[in-house]
Amino acid sequence: MIKIIAQPITAATFAPFGDLIDCAGDPDAIINLGKCGRYHDRALMDFDGGRAGISFFKAELRALPYEFGLLERHPLGSQAFIPMSEHGFLVIVASDANGVPTEPQAFLTEPGQGINFHKGTWHGVLTPLSGSGQFAVVDRIGDGDNLEEFLLETPHIVVEG
Amino acid sequence: MIKIIAQPITAATFAPFGDLIDCAGDPDAIINLGKCGRYHDRALMDFDGGRAGISFFKAELRALPYEFGLLERHPLGSQAFIPMSEHGFLVIVASDANGVPTEPQAFLTEPGQGINFHKGTWHGVLTPLSGSGQFAVVDRIGDGDNLEEFLLETPHIVVEG
Repeated sequence: MIKIIAQPITAATFAPFGDLIDCAGDPDAIINLGKCGRYHDRALMDFDGGRAGISFFKAELRALPYEFGLLERHPLGSQAFIPMSEHGFLVIVASDANGVPTEPQAFLTEPGQGINFHKGTWHGVLTPLSGSGQFAVVDRIGDGDNLEEFLLETPHIVVEG
Repeated sequence: MIKIIAQPITAATFAPFGDLIDCAGDPDAIINLGKCGRYHDRALMDFDGGRAGISFFKAELRALPYEFGLLERHPLGSQAFIPMSEHGFLVIVASDANGVPTEPQAFLTEPGQGINFHKGTWHGVLTPLSGSGQFAVVDRIGDGDNLEEFLLETPHIVVEG
């Protein structure tokens, strides 16, 4: 069993895997007669063909320590996870070494943050730890095989930092 | 002052204006080793050029009765509002009569529901009534003038049903 410590997510540490989507900094625009801030276009959506679609996911809550063995990636498109309740969630990602996931890392988001996996990034399945478990997912809709799964030889366990 | 009664939203009553995005019915797919339901591709995203982007909005909370005079529409693309806290919100829309909004209607969503305005649909600004006021917005990113505003001659007020 390989132990991974869940680390607080930051835009910088998550950058190799995707975008941290949040309301950090000043809004890019103030709209609606001053009553709304727009944090503009915060995810790199990148699709090989197809188009963006909005789906909702309802996932079972998990808990730390969290054991996992399955990683997946979407070779044809990015995938954004946006929580629909005010709770952080667990994000597992891994680097790629010649088509094989390597060096898995675990991040914890804050309430009000979403993430966008860049195209082809190895990641764990959606793992809410609290809240409704409901997420908006913006990913590629289109033909082609957009799911690659990998079962880790040694189980991994994510623990609190 | 013209009075509008806020009505509970349904997919059918909202259909002339856009999509109600929710987890109604069985999931379209069960994924992640049985632990997640996917409610697939529930919004008609429709853009004249440009591309889909994810932005976050932070809006001031409003309350009923709610007075408004400003409507807007996006002639070049659809726009989805997805709440990031477990709260319903107020949705104001209007029909179009030769480029002028007419017969405004008001809908109340349930927690866990989002909406997608179809391209060119007249609508009010984002009006959360409770919760964090934070929304994910999926709309068109691109050149061109995608905002048309209209100030109603007579103020309208939305009241509870």
